[in-house]
Amino acid sequence: MEFFFNPKGIALIGATTKSARGGFSILTNLMNGFAGKIYPVNPRYSSIEGLTCYQSVLDVPDPVDLAIVFVPAPLVPKVIQECAVRKIPGVMIESGGFSETGDDGKKLQNMLRQISHETGIRLWGPNCMGLVDAVKRHVFSFVSPTILDLGLIPGDVSLIVQSGMLSAGFLIDTMTHGTMGISKVCSIGNKVDVEECELLEYLIRDPHTKAVGLYIESIPNGRRFIEICSRSPKPIVVLKGGKSRKGAQAALSHTASLSGNGAIVSGAMSQAGIVEATDFKQMMDICRTLAAFPSLPLKSAGRVAVLTYSGGAGIVSADFIENMGLEVADLSSQTLETLKSVFPEWMPISNPVDLWPAVEKNGGEKTYRTAVEAVCADPGVDAIFLHLFAGGFSLDFDLSPLAAGVKASGKPMIAWLIGEREKTREMQSAIQKLGIPVFREIQRSVECLHALFKRNKRETPWNASVESFQYAAAAASGRWKQVLATPSSSLDEHVSKQILADFGIPTVPEKIVASISEAKAAASDFGFPIVMKGISPGVVHKTEQGLVRIGIHSNEMVENAFSDIRAAMPNGGSILVQQQIDSGIELIVGFLRDPQFGPCVMLGLGGILAEALKDTAFAVAPISRKDAFHLMDQIRAQNVLNGFRNSIPVNREVLSDILIRMGELGLACPQIQEIDINPLIVCNGNPIAVDASIILAT
Amino acid sequence: MEFFFNPKGIALIGATTKSARGGFSILTNLMNGFAGKIYPVNPRYSSIEGLTCYQSVLDVPDPVDLAIVFVPAPLVPKVIQECAVRKIPGVMIESGGFSETGDDGKKLQNMLRQISHETGIRLWGPNCMGLVDAVKRHVFSFVSPTILDLGLIPGDVSLIVQSGMLSAGFLIDTMTHGTMGISKVCSIGNKVDVEECELLEYLIRDPHTKAVGLYIESIPNGRRFIEICSRSPKPIVVLKGGKSRKGAQAALSHTASLSGNGAIVSGAMSQAGIVEATDFKQMMDICRTLAAFPSLPLKSAGRVAVLTYSGGAGIVSADFIENMGLEVADLSSQTLETLKSVFPEWMPISNPVDLWPAVEKNGGEKTYRTAVEAVCADPGVDAIFLHLFAGGFSLDFDLSPLAAGVKASGKPMIAWLIGEREKTREMQSAIQKLGIPVFREIQRSVECLHALFKRNKRETPWNASVESFQYAAAAASGRWKQVLATPSSSLDEHVSKQILADFGIPTVPEKIVASISEAKAAASDFGFPIVMKGISPGVVHKTEQGLVRIGIHSNEMVENAFSDIRAAMPNGGSILVQQQIDSGIELIVGFLRDPQFGPCVMLGLGGILAEALKDTAFAVAPISRKDAFHLMDQIRAQNVLNGFRNSIPVNREVLSDILIRMGELGLACPQIQEIDINPLIVCNGNPIAVDASIILAT
Repeated sequence: MEFFFNPKGIALIGATTKSARGGFSILTNLMNGFAGKIYPVNPRYSSIEGLTCYQSVLDVPDPVDLAIVFVPAPLVPKVIQECAVRKIPGVMIESGGFSETGDDGKKLQNMLRQISHETGIRLWGPNCMGLVDAVKRHVFSFVSPTILDLGLIPGDVSLIVQSGMLSAGFLIDTMTHGTMGISKVCSIGNKVDVEECELLEYLIRDPHTKAVGLYIESIPNGRRFIEICSRSPKPIVVLKGGKSRKGAQAALSHTASLSGNGAIVSGAMSQAGIVEATDFKQMMDICRTLAAFPSLPLKSAGRVAVLTYSGGAGIVSADFIENMGLEVADLSSQTLETLKSVFPEWMPISNPVDLWPAVEKNGGEKTYRTAVEAVCADPGVDAIFLHLFAGGFSLDFDLSPLAAGVKASGKPMIAWLIGEREKTREMQSAIQKLGIPVFREIQRSVECLHALFKRNKRETPWNASVESFQYAAAAASGRWKQVLATPSSSLDEHVSKQILADFGIPTVPEKIVASISEAKAAASDFGFPIVMKGISPGVVHKTEQGLVRIGIHSNEMVENAFSDIRAAMPNGGSILVQQQIDSGIELIVGFLRDPQFGPCVMLGLGGILAEALKDTAFAVAPISRKDAFHLMDQIRAQNVLNGFRNSIPVNREVLSDILIRMGELGLACPQIQEIDINPLIVCNGNPIAVDASIILAT
Repeated sequence: MEFFFNPKGIALIGATTKSARGGFSILTNLMNGFAGKIYPVNPRYSSIEGLTCYQSVLDVPDPVDLAIVFVPAPLVPKVIQECAVRKIPGVMIESGGFSETGDDGKKLQNMLRQISHETGIRLWGPNCMGLVDAVKRHVFSFVSPTILDLGLIPGDVSLIVQSGMLSAGFLIDTMTHGTMGISKVCSIGNKVDVEECELLEYLIRDPHTKAVGLYIESIPNGRRFIEICSRSPKPIVVLKGGKSRKGAQAALSHTASLSGNGAIVSGAMSQAGIVEATDFKQMMDICRTLAAFPSLPLKSAGRVAVLTYSGGAGIVSADFIENMGLEVADLSSQTLETLKSVFPEWMPISNPVDLWPAVEKNGGEKTYRTAVEAVCADPGVDAIFLHLFAGGFSLDFDLSPLAAGVKASGKPMIAWLIGEREKTREMQSAIQKLGIPVFREIQRSVECLHALFKRNKRETPWNASVESFQYAAAAASGRWKQVLATPSSSLDEHVSKQILADFGIPTVPEKIVASISEAKAAASDFGFPIVMKGISPGVVHKTEQGLVRIGIHSNEMVENAFSDIRAAMPNGGSILVQQQIDSGIELIVGFLRDPQFGPCVMLGLGGILAEALKDTAFAVAPISRKDAFHLMDQIRAQNVLNGFRNSIPVNREVLSDILIRMGELGLACPQIQEIDINPLIVCNGNPIAVDASIILAT
């Protein structure tokens, strides 16, 4: 990809002298920032802005390893062909008029894909705003040339964006407001060839990038994407647009119906260690925070010391810290002693620390320095949240000496800053130069702290350390080949559980019985009470059809149930005798194939209420033991798993086995589309599949 | 309160010539903005800044109806006494050193309260920053005098704040950033006398105030507060600090244990029609939005048209709109036709409307005007969310003509604006002058739209239109006087349900039986299956003690259960026979007395999972039928109440009866501290109390 980022010479196809046109903007941007050779191409001109203009890219002399194309869409295929002939390795197509405009555009875009496949030429775009590199001052984009005059602030966050706005208007906003610096912004447009995965791999290796933010609306290579992210030593933040859109797919299983509203996307991202963002500026804020502290120890708990000049701001900070699952740090007695030295005697000291009385006594600089040094030395503090004011109250002192000490401590410090507009801007800029992220709202500050401490930072990449039930799975899948090959929309409860059992998932003891005496024998084996069910082909709602009897506790009841169920199956069917599992916590475990992420495993709370609340979590198969535990951690009703009201906690080892095996099962049997285990009842802490359904792919 | 807001003459006790002191700042602020008489008081000076300085407030000539006090705390009581002698009706005490500093300070503060009670003099503060009125340019505060030089922007939002920061640093930030104008900011400090309720009543009548925001850390007069808010024709926004603090109170009932983390505060606020905020700037943003559109019709649904220049920003807006429970409007065919006139032919049009291709064709002004006019005329659109850019792309046109049309339509329009810093500031200021609230983040924009449409805007005040079961309640409370007078920590299940039944709450048929034959007779009355329970004094966990038998369906089982339960009660007790209610949806209904809000009713989902998820809602008793329905609307698992998976929907009329009666019961019987109905089982849609417990006040 180097020719996209560091070309030696650029041919600009569609250069023009007309200042209102994009072709002129690109040329101006190149001339203002790009140090290599620039070759305008346009048959109408012989020179533009003092540069020789070429009739065709075929006439351009070396060195040229990148073409930027800004000509009407219908002309693009021919131009690309010429680039291929000219052996230019990469082309950025910034023209619009392709798949975003309907069928004709789609045809044009397919032609581009074809050319790329045939010739090996790499295509970036179309319908994009190319690349902006604030470090190298490369603006390979038709964004208004004022962006270079206004000042591109170099930084260490890079972006991949599926919306031109983020590399144009939004970038101008970010730069002129001085919020942060930027390394590269890649606008990927319609992704005919180059897409987010490849660019992400490039940026992960890029020495000028410490964190990557992505705005994307689709992740067609979902599995590759999460693998790359899970291997990345650099933090990755994703804003996925369109998550609220209702899936069009008809839901056959509970698992599928619970997967809507972006639950799978969120699960996959969390599994990959990605931080999810929800808004543009918030994404940038999280990125710059993660870039500032990329190597926070995995085990930091997120105990925050809040140093403020306002009791109210301290309280609101503490509310956000606790609501987001971070902790307000308990300060050590030594820290409290140190703080006493600057406080008036009457002042009770606790965290959040309201420094105002001490500031009145000692001034801001001494007070803040004393407090920051104390919490840096406090082993019970993982992060510092500093409240600052620009423009008075003796709070606008130089933070440099203080920042050096914090840096040495290895603890992240972030600041909330308000104040007079111009002074805020100056102070913000000065503080950011010290490596301290600054925010204007308390909520945003704590959101960024949350991203630092609560992201699912991986120790091992996805798909690298998976425990291997897989050999067993391969053998088991062989044994069920015939059953899975039978054309059918779904397998019945009994067969489904036999398959699950063969893959090592604990299932309820049960038996198909042909007569009353067989039923009685089975009941005697399992012990009363038992459950009896009628399994009739095509009947899904067994309870409504009178095919389920629970609480059977005598031979007499077995007899009655047998004849009742038989009578309720006029089209025939078999009768199942099942041990009755004492109701404990009901879970639901599922498997499905997602169009973007492929085979996925789901864990959720079962029962009518929990399903209504959609307390579920998804992960992409195969899943590791850590992934399985992470799934459990994402259930909101945590205390149910932990043994709520004196019940025995769920055996997480056994449950993680089941989740891992569900993934293995689905991976081993491509014939399976969806699996529901519903309920998986936790009995004395041990989960056991009580009802299940396997839906085969069509 | 008029002497606080519009005094004729002000005595400043503690005026000084020392420019670093608060007493000097207050004087400067008064001289720069206050048009009435100013009388500095300080025995050390005979004149300050050209004004005669008085030895004591007793020497000050008329007119003087307000004293501002800024002397050391120990001197304050004497000074107030003198003000009382001098017949000054109101005093603002801005000195600190009172209850916030410990026991000595508390004593001083009690002295102030005492003086106020005895003399009738009204005291504002202490430990506060007084009043800032940007419309009248009254700065009765020791905030840095630069606040007047920097420019106080007059506006129509007023604030009551329990944190000085909000009327000092934060106000300077808001004013210099030009985010919004302000009417009055009242810093109430320790609230020794004047508190939020009284100020709120004043501001609701104040012609310069269209919306009120409050930052408060305690609401000691909770019931008065919500009554005032519920009667207010003006929108009220509250940021309650300290909501995450764990309640110290030991929880006797489920209801009490579910009330933590501010659930009661939130319930009471929602009931009163208050909008809750979580952060300072967010509170201001919501306030200015509500002030801009104070009279939105109650029935508006919140269908939003998004007009954007960026597909990505449109998608992210739609995600927020749907996640917050608003709707992305379906545009009418006429609107689509109108839009087609400005769009290129190939462009498919839907909401969010990406106007960019039309802007390229027609320029920003014409395109935006056409689109805004179309959605204003569309009956399926309730609000318009406009995306703007400052500094290029032909998007920085004059919005005045467009704004006039929107105003005439009565539909709220808000804008998201990014762009070059200086141009953004200019454009933001220009747009705000047109009455269009402008925001810099999409999330904040949609949060404000949410506040407009989703606040529980009341048609009738709290406590005004309560349905009257109360005469029946009074009679019933009389009947149970003796039972409730018996000293006991809690009443047993059977007695509790008898009381509930007498107050008109449906309870499960049940009977205390003295013998096996009585038990069999009761079973025959109720019909099998039945439940039998042992009620033994002091036994709370009946199940664990073997005192509960369910699923009894034969006389033989009745016999066994009777003797087993009797044997399990070595200390004696009685045996209860109960009809077994077929398990449906389990709810929990509760009553408790909150220290701030008094008698409260709770509705929640029952069962172990739902309790773990704390899906509950609270309201302050008495509750109206609308309040009862609002409680149901707040349950997150709405679809459970609505008849999830073919179950019969809850009869909301009957459930609202129960909730109303619970409040009446609690109000009629002050001896009752807490009530749990757990579970309230919904059987064929009808809720019925199956188990209950009444806990008496100590």
